[in-house]
Amino acid sequence: LLPVDTREVMQRYYDSIKARDWDGFAELLSPDVVYEMPQTRERISGREPYVQFNREYPGEWQIDVTRLVVDGDRAAGTMNFMVDGETVLGIGFFELTDGQITRITDIWPEPYEPPPGREHLAERLPDLSEFIDRL
Amino acid sequence: LLPVDTREVMQRYYDSIKARDWDGFAELLSPDVVYEMPQTRERISGREPYVQFNREYPGEWQIDVTRLVVDGDRAAGTMNFMVDGETVLGIGFFELTDGQITRITDIWPEPYEPPPGREHLAERLPDLSEFIDRL
Repeated sequence: LLPVDTREVMQRYYDSIKARDWDGFAELLSPDVVYEMPQTRERISGREPYVQFNREYPGEWQIDVTRLVVDGDRAAGTMNFMVDGETVLGIGFFELTDGQITRITDIWPEPYEPPPGREHLAERLPDLSEFIDRL
Repeated sequence: LLPVDTREVMQRYYDSIKARDWDGFAELLSPDVVYEMPQTRERISGREPYVQFNREYPGEWQIDVTRLVVDGDRAAGTMNFMVDGETVLGIGFFELTDGQITRITDIWPEPYEPPPGREHLAERLPDLSEFIDRL
């Protein structure tokens, strides 16, 4: 029997990724799941290709979930994605139907320099680690 | 009386920004609100500076909220930020205490080219508009 509670599905989603439990991971996905990355305009359609994408993802990587917001059949999560000694932010938005994940929108924000003109309002912290830990 | 329902606070948050109703906007914020942008490592501390930051934000801009995920005293939202004819994605994570927003984490993801090696799994769409509209 599949779990039907969104929070439980999301917890299993992240746990199965951490454990490289790709069979358990696949069970949480709709056969027609769509995975989208708006920044690169990439889309992966279907359970098998999406599992393969995760299984094949290169590098020595692990995730650390820092936030999970659950609202009915929708969720949003943030994580630290640690790959080859680097840590980057990962943000996911999720839609579920009947306890299975049907759509994932993944965001990978990168650092940039702030535009001038707001130095009178904003302080700048020396590194990203405080944000990464607290997000 | 202040609203205490998170979804209502968030709806008012976005509505007051759209309407440039900075007094109504300020009412939703804790006096000690912290606004953080992890990508630039910027932090704005306090209600007045944060209202000023929004009020002074340069350009001809407007927002269109595309998603709101509410979970107890936390929320996540996505929007299209339209400025000077361009549309970019904006993502916010929110924390509330006693019906006031105490912390905002704002993310502004930018387009990038995908790394090689996943062309066998991912299709690429010609432009971002489909993602922006559906996120």
